[in-house]
Amino acid sequence: MLTTHPFDDDKLREECGIFGVSNGEGAAALVALGLHALQHRGQEAAGITSWDGHQFHTHRAMGHVAGNFDRDDVIRSLSGTTACGHVRYSTTGETAIRNVQPLYAELASGGFAVAHNGNISNAMRLRRDLVRRGAIFQSTSDTEVILHLVATSQYRTLIDRFIDALKQVEGAYSLIVMTPEGMIACRDPLGIRPLVMGKLGDAVIFASETVALDVVGADYVRDVEPGELVIVKGNGELSSHKPFAPQAARPCIFEYVYFSRPDSISDNRSVYSVRKAIGAQLAIESPVEADLVVPVPDSGVPAAIGYAQQSGIPFELGIIRSHYVGRTFIQPGDKVRHLGVKLKHNANRDLIAGKRIVLIDDSIVRGTTSLKIVQMMHEAGAKEVHMRIASPPTRHSCFYGVDTPERAKLLAAKMDVGGMTDFIHADSLAFVSIDGLYKALGEAKRADIHPKYCDACFTGDYPTMLTDQDELAPPPDQLALLAEKVG
Amino acid sequence: MLTTHPFDDDKLREECGIFGVSNGEGAAALVALGLHALQHRGQEAAGITSWDGHQFHTHRAMGHVAGNFDRDDVIRSLSGTTACGHVRYSTTGETAIRNVQPLYAELASGGFAVAHNGNISNAMRLRRDLVRRGAIFQSTSDTEVILHLVATSQYRTLIDRFIDALKQVEGAYSLIVMTPEGMIACRDPLGIRPLVMGKLGDAVIFASETVALDVVGADYVRDVEPGELVIVKGNGELSSHKPFAPQAARPCIFEYVYFSRPDSISDNRSVYSVRKAIGAQLAIESPVEADLVVPVPDSGVPAAIGYAQQSGIPFELGIIRSHYVGRTFIQPGDKVRHLGVKLKHNANRDLIAGKRIVLIDDSIVRGTTSLKIVQMMHEAGAKEVHMRIASPPTRHSCFYGVDTPERAKLLAAKMDVGGMTDFIHADSLAFVSIDGLYKALGEAKRADIHPKYCDACFTGDYPTMLTDQDELAPPPDQLALLAEKVG
Amino acid sequence: MLTTHPFDDDKLREECGIFGVSNGEGAAALVALGLHALQHRGQEAAGITSWDGHQFHTHRAMGHVAGNFDRDDVIRSLSGTTACGHVRYSTTGETAIRNVQPLYAELASGGFAVAHNGNISNAMRLRRDLVRRGAIFQSTSDTEVILHLVATSQYRTLIDRFIDALKQVEGAYSLIVMTPEGMIACRDPLGIRPLVMGKLGDAVIFASETVALDVVGADYVRDVEPGELVIVKGNGELSSHKPFAPQAARPCIFEYVYFSRPDSISDNRSVYSVRKAIGAQLAIESPVEADLVVPVPDSGVPAAIGYAQQSGIPFELGIIRSHYVGRTFIQPGDKVRHLGVKLKHNANRDLIAGKRIVLIDDSIVRGTTSLKIVQMMHEAGAKEVHMRIASPPTRHSCFYGVDTPERAKLLAAKMDVGGMTDFIHADSLAFVSIDGLYKALGEAKRADIHPKYCDACFTGDYPTMLTDQDELAPPPDQLALLAEKVG
Amino acid sequence: MLTTHPFDDDKLREECGIFGVSNGEGAAALVALGLHALQHRGQEAAGITSWDGHQFHTHRAMGHVAGNFDRDDVIRSLSGTTACGHVRYSTTGETAIRNVQPLYAELASGGFAVAHNGNISNAMRLRRDLVRRGAIFQSTSDTEVILHLVATSQYRTLIDRFIDALKQVEGAYSLIVMTPEGMIACRDPLGIRPLVMGKLGDAVIFASETVALDVVGADYVRDVEPGELVIVKGNGELSSHKPFAPQAARPCIFEYVYFSRPDSISDNRSVYSVRKAIGAQLAIESPVEADLVVPVPDSGVPAAIGYAQQSGIPFELGIIRSHYVGRTFIQPGDKVRHLGVKLKHNANRDLIAGKRIVLIDDSIVRGTTSLKIVQMMHEAGAKEVHMRIASPPTRHSCFYGVDTPERAKLLAAKMDVGGMTDFIHADSLAFVSIDGLYKALGEAKRADIHPKYCDACFTGDYPTMLTDQDELAPPPDQLALLAEKVG
Repeated sequence: MLTTHPFDDDKLREECGIFGVSNGEGAAALVALGLHALQHRGQEAAGITSWDGHQFHTHRAMGHVAGNFDRDDVIRSLSGTTACGHVRYSTTGETAIRNVQPLYAELASGGFAVAHNGNISNAMRLRRDLVRRGAIFQSTSDTEVILHLVATSQYRTLIDRFIDALKQVEGAYSLIVMTPEGMIACRDPLGIRPLVMGKLGDAVIFASETVALDVVGADYVRDVEPGELVIVKGNGELSSHKPFAPQAARPCIFEYVYFSRPDSISDNRSVYSVRKAIGAQLAIESPVEADLVVPVPDSGVPAAIGYAQQSGIPFELGIIRSHYVGRTFIQPGDKVRHLGVKLKHNANRDLIAGKRIVLIDDSIVRGTTSLKIVQMMHEAGAKEVHMRIASPPTRHSCFYGVDTPERAKLLAAKMDVGGMTDFIHADSLAFVSIDGLYKALGEAKRADIHPKYCDACFTGDYPTMLTDQDELAPPPDQLALLAEKVG
Repeated sequence: MLTTHPFDDDKLREECGIFGVSNGEGAAALVALGLHALQHRGQEAAGITSWDGHQFHTHRAMGHVAGNFDRDDVIRSLSGTTACGHVRYSTTGETAIRNVQPLYAELASGGFAVAHNGNISNAMRLRRDLVRRGAIFQSTSDTEVILHLVATSQYRTLIDRFIDALKQVEGAYSLIVMTPEGMIACRDPLGIRPLVMGKLGDAVIFASETVALDVVGADYVRDVEPGELVIVKGNGELSSHKPFAPQAARPCIFEYVYFSRPDSISDNRSVYSVRKAIGAQLAIESPVEADLVVPVPDSGVPAAIGYAQQSGIPFELGIIRSHYVGRTFIQPGDKVRHLGVKLKHNANRDLIAGKRIVLIDDSIVRGTTSLKIVQMMHEAGAKEVHMRIASPPTRHSCFYGVDTPERAKLLAAKMDVGGMTDFIHADSLAFVSIDGLYKALGEAKRADIHPKYCDACFTGDYPTMLTDQDELAPPPDQLALLAEKVG
Repeated sequence: MLTTHPFDDDKLREECGIFGVSNGEGAAALVALGLHALQHRGQEAAGITSWDGHQFHTHRAMGHVAGNFDRDDVIRSLSGTTACGHVRYSTTGETAIRNVQPLYAELASGGFAVAHNGNISNAMRLRRDLVRRGAIFQSTSDTEVILHLVATSQYRTLIDRFIDALKQVEGAYSLIVMTPEGMIACRDPLGIRPLVMGKLGDAVIFASETVALDVVGADYVRDVEPGELVIVKGNGELSSHKPFAPQAARPCIFEYVYFSRPDSISDNRSVYSVRKAIGAQLAIESPVEADLVVPVPDSGVPAAIGYAQQSGIPFELGIIRSHYVGRTFIQPGDKVRHLGVKLKHNANRDLIAGKRIVLIDDSIVRGTTSLKIVQMMHEAGAKEVHMRIASPPTRHSCFYGVDTPERAKLLAAKMDVGGMTDFIHADSLAFVSIDGLYKALGEAKRADIHPKYCDACFTGDYPTMLTDQDELAPPPDQLALLAEKVG
Repeated sequence: MLTTHPFDDDKLREECGIFGVSNGEGAAALVALGLHALQHRGQEAAGITSWDGHQFHTHRAMGHVAGNFDRDDVIRSLSGTTACGHVRYSTTGETAIRNVQPLYAELASGGFAVAHNGNISNAMRLRRDLVRRGAIFQSTSDTEVILHLVATSQYRTLIDRFIDALKQVEGAYSLIVMTPEGMIACRDPLGIRPLVMGKLGDAVIFASETVALDVVGADYVRDVEPGELVIVKGNGELSSHKPFAPQAARPCIFEYVYFSRPDSISDNRSVYSVRKAIGAQLAIESPVEADLVVPVPDSGVPAAIGYAQQSGIPFELGIIRSHYVGRTFIQPGDKVRHLGVKLKHNANRDLIAGKRIVLIDDSIVRGTTSLKIVQMMHEAGAKEVHMRIASPPTRHSCFYGVDTPERAKLLAAKMDVGGMTDFIHADSLAFVSIDGLYKALGEAKRADIHPKYCDACFTGDYPTMLTDQDELAPPPDQLALLAEKVG
C-alpha cells in the first residue's frame, strides 16, 4: 500500500480527487492521467466512467491509478469521448467496491454517473427519508443520496431534477456528473472544495487541481465558481447556471497548507508561494537563533525555504527521506517495532551533530510524529531543536470531506502550546498565527464577520449546518468518527 | 514496479546491496530492515538466508523487500541468530528466481550461502572450465562460480578452500558468506564495492552502506578493508585475514556521486557533504548569472544546495516530483505517450516564468531526460536554462556490478560538451572537472599514477583485468551488454 | 473452470440452486456444505448471507463453493444461526458480482435478502415501471424486481408487502428470503422449480434437492408445496401460508431427466429409479439386437442400466471418462483442436471393436456431442451404433430458469428423427415417447388437459404467461437468448 | 486441489507420468495433451522441456496440466519439434519447483533434460559420493544423481556416459532424455514402471500409458522393452540398444489393479478386461448370496461389472459420486467435520434400503475409507454388507516410485482378514488370492521362482537391492517415509 506522506497517520487526509473530460478523444486515458496526478488526494480506490454515445462503461478498483488504470485492456473498455473519474479513501471488504465512485444509476431518463469531492452533512437524514419511501441504496456513501433525490424528483427535465436534489443537500460538494445529454460540473454555494476548468483542443476538462491540467497538457481556463453549474453538451456547447442564492464563498484554507500539490495554482495563487510566504511569516512571528533550517520532508520543504530566506539561516536536508517510503514496510516481530520511524526518515547525522536546528513542518495533528522527529534530531546530536509549524493549531474536526481523527485525539484540542512543547520534547515550539496565515494569503488579517476561507479546523467556525452531527445528540466532536464513515 | 529515481532509464544503476547479522536475536528481521534501507541498490528481487544452528532457511522473491519480507510467516520461517540477505536487479521468468541471492549449496562440509555485490570479470572463462570438469550450474549468475570453486578446491579446511576460490576470480566483490561454522565478510583487494561493519549489542553486522546500520540502530565500527576477510564464529569470536598481496585500494567514486544514500558515511566522509562540496566546486568552476538554482529532484538536491550557498543565488523547488513516481504509470494509448515526463516531474510555473535558471543534476547518461527537463523549463517560461552536472562526463561502461548502457548509448561517448549543450537545448552546460571531483573528496587533484578511486566510467582507466571482455574479440565497450547479463 | 458434465455445451443447464438454514448453530457452514452438494445446479458463482440477530453478513464470489466458502475466515465472518445461499450461472465482468445472489437490500423495515431459483417472465416490464417511479437497480437480475416491489408496496407488514410483490410477478420461482423477523421459503403457484424442507435437530432446512439434506445429515420432512409460503420465525415458530388461488401444479419434468442428482428424491420418487425406468421403457419401445449397452458417462448410466436389465444385453463401460473432465483443458494451437473430445472421453477400444453397440444418453440438445461420440465408437471398430435417448426430442426453449440455446440451435427443432439419425451418423436413433416418459413416472400417459408436469421443452405447452417474450414482437423462440440474459 | 480418486488418502499413489515427442510439429502442445491424459499418475506439479534445434525451453508449474499448460503463451514459449514432459507428486515450498521435472543441466556436451518415472533405490548413497567429489545439487530429487553421473563420467560419447550412469543406479526407472543430438527413452532392466512407444505421422512418441497415445491420435507401436534404450536422432533415425545383462522382467502388477486407466492397454492386455476378470475371479473364489453388486466409484466399477456378470447378481449404482469430488471441500468449523465422506459419496438410499449388498473396491490401504463406506451402507438401511477386494491384502511398502504409507499404517500389515472384517464392520470380507490375481492376467498361478510381475506390495518379494533402505539400519518398512521423500 502506497501512502502519500511519510507520517501519514499524523496528517489530515483529503478524501477525494475528481477529473472529467468532455468531448476529447481518448477521454478515459486522459482521465487516468489526471487521476494519477491527483493521487495524493485519495489513494485507496479509483474509478472511471465513460460514455460512448450509446452506453456507459465503468471500471473501479481498490488501489492506485497506476497498476489499475494504465492497462490497455481497461482503457480500451472505457470507450468514448466523455469520461470522468474519482480517487478516494475507502474501507475494505466486499462493500468497499460499491462505494468506489463514480456512482452510477440507470434512471428513467437514462444513465447518470456522479463523482463527488466533499461530504454531505445531512446525508443520514436524507437517506432515512428516502428509504422510508421505498428507495434501495447500493452503497453506504453519502453521495448516493444525490442519485435517489434526482431519481425521485417531481421535476421534468434532468437539470431541474438535479438542481432540486442539490437544494436539499447541505455541506461540501464539488461534483462531476455524466448523463447522455452531457457533463455537469458544479460546486456547492460556499465553494468549500476546489474545482477548476481547463481546455485541451476542443475538449473541456474539469479537475480538483491545476496540476492535473498540467499533466494532460491542458490550459487552465478558470475556477468553477462557488454555487455554479457548468454544463457541457455532447456538441460542445457550454453554459453556466447559478441556481442558488448568492453567498460569500468559503474555500478550504487547508488546501494551501497541505492538501494541494505545491505546483498547483488555486484561485490565482501559487500554492508553493503561499507556503513559502507562511514560512517567511513564521520567521517574522517566531524568530530563533539557529545554525540550520531543516524541513520535515517532503511537505515542510516550501515553508522551510521561506523561513530560511527570511531569516538568513541556511536551508539544509537534515532529514533524509527514503525513496521507498511509499511502500509501507510492516515490521515483523516485536524486537524491531520501535525502529519504525527510521525506515522512512533518517537523520543526516554528520550535518546535525552539535547544531541548533529550526525544524519546519506544515501541521501537527496527533503529535506522535513530531515527537519522534524531535527525538531523532536529539539522538543525532542536535544541540537545540526549535519546531516551527506552518499552520495554526488544529483543534477541530472537519465534516467537509477530510479524514480527521476524532477531536479527542487532536493534540491541540487537549493542550496549549506550552504543553505541546513539552510533549514533543522540543526546545521551543511555535505555530503561525491565524492572522499570519491570512497575511500569507494576501489578506490584512482574518475578517471577523465574513472570513474569506473555511478555517473551521483551526477556529471551530463551521460555515454550514451540521444536521447529521446535531441529531447525534452529544457534542459533535466526540462523534466525528461516525460522520467520517458516512463520508 | 517501483523505481528509485524519477528518470531511471537515464541513470546508472547499482546492481546490489548486501546485509548480514551474526549472533543477533531476530537476525532475519534485522536483515529485512537492513535490506529495506538498501532498497535503492537493487529493486527487482531480494533474498534472505538464515542459519539456526541446525539448518539453513532461505526465502527469495521477485520484487521489493516491503511486501515480501515484512510478512510474519516469512520472518518466522527464517529462524536463527545468523542471517544474510541481498537485493538485486534481475531478469524475469522462471530462471530469474534461481539467480536471486543468497546463492546456496550443500557442500561436503555442509551448507554454504553467499551474497555478492560486484561483478566477477572472468566468470565466463571460469564457468566453462568448471563445466568441462563435470560441474552443473543452477543459475546464470557470475557469483555461482565461487560456489563451484569452493566445492572442487583441493584444500582441506573451508577457509582455505574459500581463499583458494577467491584467488582465481577477478573483478569486484563484496561478499557475505554463511557456513555452519560462522559468517565471513570480505572485499576484493581493490575494495571496489563498499562494505561496512557495525555492532548492535553482541551482534556483528555487515552492510553495503552505513544507512542500513542506522536503520537497525547499530553503531558503525569500521569499513571492511580492501582484501580483508572478517570471520565471525558461532561463539562470537572475530578474526581478520588478509590473504592477498597488498595493493593500493580503488573504491568506486560513483558511490559518492549517485549510488549511496546522502545520509550514508563512506570512508569517514558524509555523502551529503561530498555532494554539496561538488556543487560548490561547480559554482566555482562554472559560474553563471541567474535568478534561481533548481535541482532535478531528488538526486540533484544536495549539489544544488552547495551551488546555491557558494554562488548566493537562491535555491528553489522549480520542479515538483510526484509523490507517486515510485509506481510507474504505463501510459495507455499512443495519444498520451508524450505526456510521460510530467507524470513524474512538473514545472513550478509560477516560480520559473521569466527567470534565469541554473539546473543541477548529478550526471548525464543517455541525455534523454536532461533534454525533457530543459524543455519543460522552457515551456514553463524560463528565460535562460543553464545546466550544471555534479560529475564529469560519463564516457565508459562499468564492469564491476553497475548496470551501464552499452558505450554507444552514452551521450558523452558520442559528443563533446558543445554538442551535448545543443542536444539538450540548454543555454549553457558544464560538468565538474575530474580534478574538481577529487577536490570535493579532499584530494588536491586526481593522481596520475595511483588515483585514489576507481573512476573508469569517467576516465576508462580500469583497475583490473577484464578477461571475459578480452575474449569477446571486438572492443569491450560494444559488448558491454553481454557482460551485464552475466553480472 | 470446472464443468458438471463432460459435454456441457450440449446439455441444458439448470441455472440455480438454493439452500437455507434457520435456527441452526454454524448455519453458514451448513449452507456451504449444502451448496457444495448443489454445485451441479450452478457453477459460476455462489453467495451466502447470514443473520446474527443484529446484522446481516454477506459473502459472494465468482467460482465454486469449494475454494471460496470452505475458508475459515469466510465462514467465521458469516456469523449467526440463520443463513441462506445460492449457486448460479452468471456472466463475467464487474457487473457480474452484483448479480450473484443472495441479493440484499436495506428496507425501512430492516435488511431483506433473497435467493431465487427460477425466472420471472415479466421482469423486464416490471423493471421499466419501477424505474419510472424512481427506483434505482443495482443489478441486471430479474430477481431484483422482487426487492423493489417489496420496498415500494403500500401494505404495512413485511409479509403483506412480500405477498403483494409475488402477486405481481409471473413465471417460476422457488425463493428463500431472510429478514430480521425470520426466514421465508416459497414456491410459485405451479411449483415449477423444486424446494424441499428438512430438519436437523432444532434447525429447519430448505434446499433445492434432498441430496443437500443428506450431505448435512438432515432428515427430509416434506416438499414446500406449490404456492406455499413457509415462515420460520427467530424463535423457531413455523407457519404455512397459501395466498394464491389454488391451481394444478406443474413441476419441471426435466429435473428427473437430467438436472437433479440421481440420489435425490423428488416428490417421493427416486431420481435414479425414474431414470432406470425410462431406460427400461426405451428398451420396450425401441429394442435392438446388440452385443453391449454402453452409457455416455456419467449422465447416461442409470438409463443404460435400466435398458440393459430390461433387454438382457450386457452393460459395459465402452467409454471411459477422464477423472479430470472437470477442469477444462483449453487446447493450445490449431493443430490439436480436433482432439478435444478424447480429452474427456476415450473409447475402450478392446471392448468395442467388432461389436454392435446400444449407446444411451439422457438427451440431445445441439447434437454436436452425439455426433462425436458416435464417430468415436465407429473409429474404435464398432460394427453398429444404435443411439437411444432417455427423453423425448427437445424442441422448445425454457423461460423458467434453464439455460437453453435459442430455438434455432436445437437439433430436434430443425429436423425429424430420420434427419437426426443421419446427422449423427448412427445406425439407428430413438427417443423415449412423451407418454413413455410419463409412464416411467407412474402415470398411464400424458394427460391432454392438465398434464402433471411442465414439459414445455418437449411439447411447447408453456404453463404461464410470457409477458417479456410477447413484448419482444417476433416469435418467442428466436429471442430466447434475450430472455436468458435477464434470467 | 483436484484429486483423482474420491478417498485418495486411502489409496496407493503412482508418483509420475512421462510423455515425449520426437520430430513432431507442435511437440509441446502434444506433450501437454499427453500429460493431461496421464494426470491421474501425478497431480501436484508438471513440467515440459522443448528443444528447437538451438536451445532448450522449460516451463514448470505446481498444479495441474490444465490451467498451466493449456495457455497459448506457455505453449508458444516451448518452441521446437522435440519435447518431453512429466507429471508428479511433490512437496510444497520454494524447493518444490526445483524438484519438478524435467530436470535440466548444461553439460560440457550441451543441454541435457530428463523426465523420470520410478525411484532410484541407491540415490542417497550415490549423492553422498558425488557431493564429496564437489558436485552441487540443485534439487532433493533422486533423479538428479543421473545428471551428475553423466556430467562426471569418464567416457567420451554422451551415450556411453549415460549408460555408465545407468549402470551405477539401482531401482526402477522409465526415462525420457533430451539432448541436442536426440531423444532417448529407456526402462530399467526389470521394466518395473511402464513405457510405450507410438507413432503419429513422422513423429515418434513415448508415454507411460497407451491412453496418452489415444488422446493425441497416435498409434501404439510397442512397449519399450525392459533394459532397452531407444534413441531417436534429430533426423528421425531410430536405434535400439540393450547394454545390460539379460534378466527376467518384473513389471508392476499394481498398474493393472489400480494405477493405469482402464482404457489403457499394457503388454497387450486391456486393463479394463483384467479388472473385470479379477472381479469374476473374486465371484468364483468368494461367492455370497446378495441382492445387489455395488461398486465403490469409480475405481471399483470394472471389477464390480465382472463380479455381477459372473454371479448373476444385478449391478447397481448404490453409491453416487459427486461430480465435484475433484475439488476438495475443506470443511470449515468442527461442527461439520464428520460430514466429510458424504460430500464425495452419497448412498442411493432408495436402492440400498433392505438389501443385501456386495460392495466391490480395488484395494484396502489404511482401511479408513472402507470403514466409512460400509457404515454409509448400513445407515442407508442395507441388510447385509459383503466387501470384496479386487487385489490381495497390501502388506508391504513400495520403493519403486509409489507413494505408500509407512508399513505400520497398512491395515493388512497389522491384522488378518478376520480382524479387518471386524475393523470395517462388514458382514464378510474377502480379497482375491495372489494366484487368482495371476489367473486374471492369464497365468496358471504365481511362479515361485521367477514370478512374472513385481508384486512386492503383496508378497514382500523385492526384485532389486534396496541400498538406501539397508543403510538406514532399522527394518526398512519403518523408514519407508524417508525413502519416499527422496523419491
